[in-house]
Amino acid sequence: MTVNYNLLVSNSSPWALFKLLVRWKGSIWKAVWLEYLVWLICFFIVSAIYRFALPDEQKKIFVHVSKYIDEKIRYVPMDFMLGFFVTIVVNRWGIIFQNIGILDNVSLMTAAHVNGKTVEARMIRRNIVRYCVLAQCIVFRDISMQVRKRFPTLDTVVVGRLMMPHEKERFESIDDKYAKHWMPFQWAISLANYARRKELVDSEIRIDTLINEIKTFRTQMATLRNYDWVPLPIMYPQLVVLAVHTYFFLALISRQFVDESNIIDLYFPIMSSLQFIFYIGWMKVAEGLLNPMGEDDDDFECNWLLDRNLRIGLTIVDEGYEITPDIIQDEFWG
Amino acid sequence: MTVNYNLLVSNSSPWALFKLLVRWKGSIWKAVWLEYLVWLICFFIVSAIYRFALPDEQKKIFVHVSKYIDEKIRYVPMDFMLGFFVTIVVNRWGIIFQNIGILDNVSLMTAAHVNGKTVEARMIRRNIVRYCVLAQCIVFRDISMQVRKRFPTLDTVVVGRLMMPHEKERFESIDDKYAKHWMPFQWAISLANYARRKELVDSEIRIDTLINEIKTFRTQMATLRNYDWVPLPIMYPQLVVLAVHTYFFLALISRQFVDESNIIDLYFPIMSSLQFIFYIGWMKVAEGLLNPMGEDDDDFECNWLLDRNLRIGLTIVDEGYEITPDIIQDEFWG
Amino acid sequence: MTVNYNLLVSNSSPWALFKLLVRWKGSIWKAVWLEYLVWLICFFIVSAIYRFALPDEQKKIFVHVSKYIDEKIRYVPMDFMLGFFVTIVVNRWGIIFQNIGILDNVSLMTAAHVNGKTVEARMIRRNIVRYCVLAQCIVFRDISMQVRKRFPTLDTVVVGRLMMPHEKERFESIDDKYAKHWMPFQWAISLANYARRKELVDSEIRIDTLINEIKTFRTQMATLRNYDWVPLPIMYPQLVVLAVHTYFFLALISRQFVDESNIIDLYFPIMSSLQFIFYIGWMKVAEGLLNPMGEDDDDFECNWLLDRNLRIGLTIVDEGYEITPDIIQDEFWG
Amino acid sequence: MTVNYNLLVSNSSPWALFKLLVRWKGSIWKAVWLEYLVWLICFFIVSAIYRFALPDEQKKIFVHVSKYIDEKIRYVPMDFMLGFFVTIVVNRWGIIFQNIGILDNVSLMTAAHVNGKTVEARMIRRNIVRYCVLAQCIVFRDISMQVRKRFPTLDTVVVGRLMMPHEKERFESIDDKYAKHWMPFQWAISLANYARRKELVDSEIRIDTLINEIKTFRTQMATLRNYDWVPLPIMYPQLVVLAVHTYFFLALISRQFVDESNIIDLYFPIMSSLQFIFYIGWMKVAEGLLNPMGEDDDDFECNWLLDRNLRIGLTIVDEGYEITPDIIQDEFWG
Amino acid sequence: MTVNYNLLVSNSSPWALFKLLVRWKGSIWKAVWLEYLVWLICFFIVSAIYRFALPDEQKKIFVHVSKYIDEKIRYVPMDFMLGFFVTIVVNRWGIIFQNIGILDNVSLMTAAHVNGKTVEARMIRRNIVRYCVLAQCIVFRDISMQVRKRFPTLDTVVVGRLMMPHEKERFESIDDKYAKHWMPFQWAISLANYARRKELVDSEIRIDTLINEIKTFRTQMATLRNYDWVPLPIMYPQLVVLAVHTYFFLALISRQFVDESNIIDLYFPIMSSLQFIFYIGWMKVAEGLLNPMGEDDDDFECNWLLDRNLRIGLTIVDEGYEITPDIIQDEFWG
Repeated sequence: MTVNYNLLVSNSSPWALFKLLVRWKGSIWKAVWLEYLVWLICFFIVSAIYRFALPDEQKKIFVHVSKYIDEKIRYVPMDFMLGFFVTIVVNRWGIIFQNIGILDNVSLMTAAHVNGKTVEARMIRRNIVRYCVLAQCIVFRDISMQVRKRFPTLDTVVVGRLMMPHEKERFESIDDKYAKHWMPFQWAISLANYARRKELVDSEIRIDTLINEIKTFRTQMATLRNYDWVPLPIMYPQLVVLAVHTYFFLALISRQFVDESNIIDLYFPIMSSLQFIFYIGWMKVAEGLLNPMGEDDDDFECNWLLDRNLRIGLTIVDEGYEITPDIIQDEFWG
Repeated sequence: MTVNYNLLVSNSSPWALFKLLVRWKGSIWKAVWLEYLVWLICFFIVSAIYRFALPDEQKKIFVHVSKYIDEKIRYVPMDFMLGFFVTIVVNRWGIIFQNIGILDNVSLMTAAHVNGKTVEARMIRRNIVRYCVLAQCIVFRDISMQVRKRFPTLDTVVVGRLMMPHEKERFESIDDKYAKHWMPFQWAISLANYARRKELVDSEIRIDTLINEIKTFRTQMATLRNYDWVPLPIMYPQLVVLAVHTYFFLALISRQFVDESNIIDLYFPIMSSLQFIFYIGWMKVAEGLLNPMGEDDDDFECNWLLDRNLRIGLTIVDEGYEITPDIIQDEFWG
Repeated sequence: MTVNYNLLVSNSSPWALFKLLVRWKGSIWKAVWLEYLVWLICFFIVSAIYRFALPDEQKKIFVHVSKYIDEKIRYVPMDFMLGFFVTIVVNRWGIIFQNIGILDNVSLMTAAHVNGKTVEARMIRRNIVRYCVLAQCIVFRDISMQVRKRFPTLDTVVVGRLMMPHEKERFESIDDKYAKHWMPFQWAISLANYARRKELVDSEIRIDTLINEIKTFRTQMATLRNYDWVPLPIMYPQLVVLAVHTYFFLALISRQFVDESNIIDLYFPIMSSLQFIFYIGWMKVAEGLLNPMGEDDDDFECNWLLDRNLRIGLTIVDEGYEITPDIIQDEFWG
Repeated sequence: MTVNYNLLVSNSSPWALFKLLVRWKGSIWKAVWLEYLVWLICFFIVSAIYRFALPDEQKKIFVHVSKYIDEKIRYVPMDFMLGFFVTIVVNRWGIIFQNIGILDNVSLMTAAHVNGKTVEARMIRRNIVRYCVLAQCIVFRDISMQVRKRFPTLDTVVVGRLMMPHEKERFESIDDKYAKHWMPFQWAISLANYARRKELVDSEIRIDTLINEIKTFRTQMATLRNYDWVPLPIMYPQLVVLAVHTYFFLALISRQFVDESNIIDLYFPIMSSLQFIFYIGWMKVAEGLLNPMGEDDDDFECNWLLDRNLRIGLTIVDEGYEITPDIIQDEFWG
Repeated sequence: MTVNYNLLVSNSSPWALFKLLVRWKGSIWKAVWLEYLVWLICFFIVSAIYRFALPDEQKKIFVHVSKYIDEKIRYVPMDFMLGFFVTIVVNRWGIIFQNIGILDNVSLMTAAHVNGKTVEARMIRRNIVRYCVLAQCIVFRDISMQVRKRFPTLDTVVVGRLMMPHEKERFESIDDKYAKHWMPFQWAISLANYARRKELVDSEIRIDTLINEIKTFRTQMATLRNYDWVPLPIMYPQLVVLAVHTYFFLALISRQFVDESNIIDLYFPIMSSLQFIFYIGWMKVAEGLLNPMGEDDDDFECNWLLDRNLRIGLTIVDEGYEITPDIIQDEFWG
């Protein structure tokens, strides 16, 4: 579920941002706390070993190693990697979002171009919309864990009333090893052609526009599938994850307070903790955006979208059809 | 309200930029002053405690802690985070801006394709335009605080004469838990179809073009809603805000003038103040752009846009209809 | 006027780049010299005060302050700010440039779709083109200082023969507080419709294409206006300007040669001068691009563009109409 | 073959990322291990020479050189170069991916607009689809090593049944030194025109839409060819490769443990190894993306795509043609 | 001529990249060697003066200056400037490349929509294609040095058979101070209209599509011209060139080996040489991309493109016209 905070930032008073920080859902706190806890425990274990378990000779070596690592830890290029990686991932996320599939244009065009109040006309309009939502559902089942869980099999789609039994039969009548999400789209297009033959569509240009609109929606679905088919090369996220985790693994040793000349002996690694939160959090941003069809707090609400598309779509082509208010003179008439 | 300064930078004389700096409205000064004041007071309180309240032993510890933090404060990756974050936010802001919804194309196409000077033709043209503005208003009510305040309820929209009472009834006759901004668009499209049936539109291709234009405007509105529905994952702004504020919180301690060997004892943290202004200011830029439909000085003027769209739209389709000057030979005629 | 240097970089011989450096017009030298001079004079004044006016005690303090500032001056994040800011500004500049408004497509489509060699046909074609240029002129008057100076009032537009007196009357017959650049576009579209009614345009699809072309041009003009209406939030350029100027203001003190152990006592701040030129120059790049409709050497030549559009447009639709060469077999005929 | 890991990152639990790290295929480990091994062996050889072969006098010089290089090695600007270079390469990769050529739209439009269940109608529909795949195959042969290996000659394409013998004859009847991938596209367009003449296509607007769809697919193929024709200027990857390799070549000397005052004498260059993996890995990311039509684990599966396009395409236009389910009232009917 | 290296990087074996490095044409070596040589000679001259010509007193001053510069040389912000500048230039280069003008779509549409095997029909089709190539040639003459050298005057274009004498006459019959590349496009469009009047084009929608295709090609040419008309403001490349060259000019002094305590006295500035190659090379990348219509190894092959467009275009509309293979059942027929 996406987490909305626009209201919080509608004006930029100084305290607006603090309110942002106390959110839990989808927050950096929620993303980071478990890893931070684990890291902190490891830190204290290492600390305890150094302070209480090691003989003096080995303590010296530990100090040496710690200082050596601390000096060389800048070899890990976290800043640059994260900065550029997050930018790339955000762009990708933006494209996926733009193709998430809002059905309103298809619905409005269906209502605009397929005429008639007969049962048949209504059925055609409703089915065109439903077939598009069905295709979206089939695509989402392949790429979104949320939708997969809701519709684990085609039968559950039938139960969810997105598909009717005789349609499922027809759907399964063609055996193909490749994904078949094109089929409901073809049904929708055929229906449109059928409506034209029945003279429910007034002209060739209107049917062309309608088919084109369905095609546009289909192309969005295809884009989603393609972005699922070809993710960013695995090497890149691997690299970033490796760099960040290696850094903080090394920090377990290098950030121990081993300097004997210190007059105050700090036990809690406060600065390293902050650094941990910032960098792991930054990495989590990238991770959360890498697969926005997943189940994180901030991922797209695919199930909600299916319901919304079906509901609004049916309303537009059926209840909303031809209920235009009477045409009277508006109040600015001069 | 957007703050315009194009005139100031129309040529790049050396003093042009200074004039830029003395602006108050929407300025960095206005954005930063309060937080800076609070920070400065805190700084002096810490300073006073250190200088007057602490016993010598604890002073030593304070100095130690201060130096320790000052050394490690570079762990907070502000530069990179802000740089990349602002770039991402600016891109997002640009997309929102491109979809803000200027109605002129719809108006011009309505005037071009719906013929006739009869009252009915005029009413149809005017209503198509008004319905588009109405839909924009309904969308804006959901995403812009300014418009929400102007039109808190549908009744106020009626009072504002964007909607007529019988339209409000029709609008509410369909009960739906989802947003209904599609409805005025459907009315507009239906009206266009009606005009075609009444032979006020000459051909099928013209009606197709007109509907397409309305659809384009609708898609812009849908885009605005979607960007409101799915903001940047909250984690990212949280992270940036946290990093910047943590940095300056730590600076309260680390930037105290604790060096005893100093022959001049500075009381005012001038360099840290500058840094505060630059980084908090940079963050404020991001914050201001994060929700451009808000109420900051630099946010889009949504109410103004509604008025403008309605006024120009009605003028184009009504007063401006068919007032083309006489066709005579131009003055370059050769 | 844009400054062209493509020829200079057509091959990348080592000395090609040096030739680039000796250009004056639109150059970094021209942009920077005045500010540099002022800065240098200030530097020498501070230097003179330190060397000759200050008593020893205060000299010590000056040295102290100077060193303190020099150490902390890295708090000013110029690199990052300028790098990201310039990139954003360049993108914006690119979009404005892509919408600057070349009329050729409109002219060619007018010539292609409005037939006839009668005076009336010629007048219609010529007027469509002229109305588009007129609209462009009206838009440019609002956003470009150059065009504003050339056409301070509507009367000067009439004198410039872009508008005829009876058109000006018609233009002013509609009283509106909003900009009226849509009006000449509506005239052009109405003219196209008139031509269709007079059967000078062969088919509905042609008139649709022609109107669409005019609309595309209009949308470009509207985009220009919008980018003028909503600039980058003023806070961002303020921030950058402030950061850069503050840096060099502080450098007046911190870069004095106060180290007594120096065996050579440098008087001229050569390295700081270089830095000044690079950073102020970088900022000037951003400034020059921020409002490309201004009057800098490198700003778009709006007046030239208006003349060009009118001249080429009229030629295309009139003299160039139907002068296709005889159709004979080309020389590759096999 | 692209490596899919979306499932792994569908939620961002802390251990999700660790699972990412243990993948081998397409992984950073696989990309880096060989070079790392070579580098490590070289490192130990240098180490052995220094420790056992050099006389004391030369040891001193070695230490000196080593320290000198270590100090100056930051002259190699790896961070910046890699960061910006990878971003550019990722953008390029994204464009290539968007034009990889999914045939579904062409297939659906062919099925929608070419009517009839006669053998001729079926042949026309099937051939239009097959010709598009054939053209894609011919383009892929020129730019993808995988497809080249599968179809080394035109005869193998015939054997693969993408092309029929009489088509190959026709294809070769035109002798041209330039690539001839346009030919199957022209066949497809001619077939569509033929279908129109046979009145299998209902109207001119439908044939226009169909031809347009084929053209869109062709343009994608042309884009792929162009990106193959004009790669990023060779200088840029050369520069990056050179920088990274030079850095680690120098590191062979500079990272030896030559400091005599060290109480622990490290033999294994652990920190340098990490750095090697991160930077070489980062470079490998760029390299993998530079030619995504190659044979790396993460490159596009061009052969699979050809098979998929043909299979789904034929199914859509033939078996899927006119099998729309019966139109009955859906289950939300109210 | 573009330099192709895709084959080299089709898989990412470790040695693939080394093969990349040994290329000469278009390589970084070729771009850098001359400037490097000059710099190296200067370096040795300065070195010789310091070592052999200077008296001890001045040697001391030299050492002092050298160290001073070495310390402050980081004032020159090369990393950031180059990184951001190259990114901007690459984007620009990409846009130019996308508009370079491949004529295939125009040719295919001409063949698809202009029917008939008569001599007249063939002449019309051939001329439409040739006129487009002619227009491209006229545009290229203005912006590409290569094409300018091949066609220094219009007469050479006639000799090159792209233009026929009677066309040249017609071309010159209109006297205009502005570029006249629109004229061949207008001829092509007029020819298309003529074909329609002769009923060689079946319908209005086909002629509209054809004209639109020609317009698209024209718009690409116009874009090329505009990018030539408005380059990146000269200030920006000046700045970058200045920064890089200043840096290495200063390095002539600061990188001398003046440290007396050095037990090894290095004569060859190996690390500075590497740095020189990397940064000058990086700058050369930007320079090479700044004007891709020039004569560098990696610039677009404009002359080749003209020949290719003409040859393939004529083949498509003439020899390739209506040679579709017989329609028979494909081998997957089931």
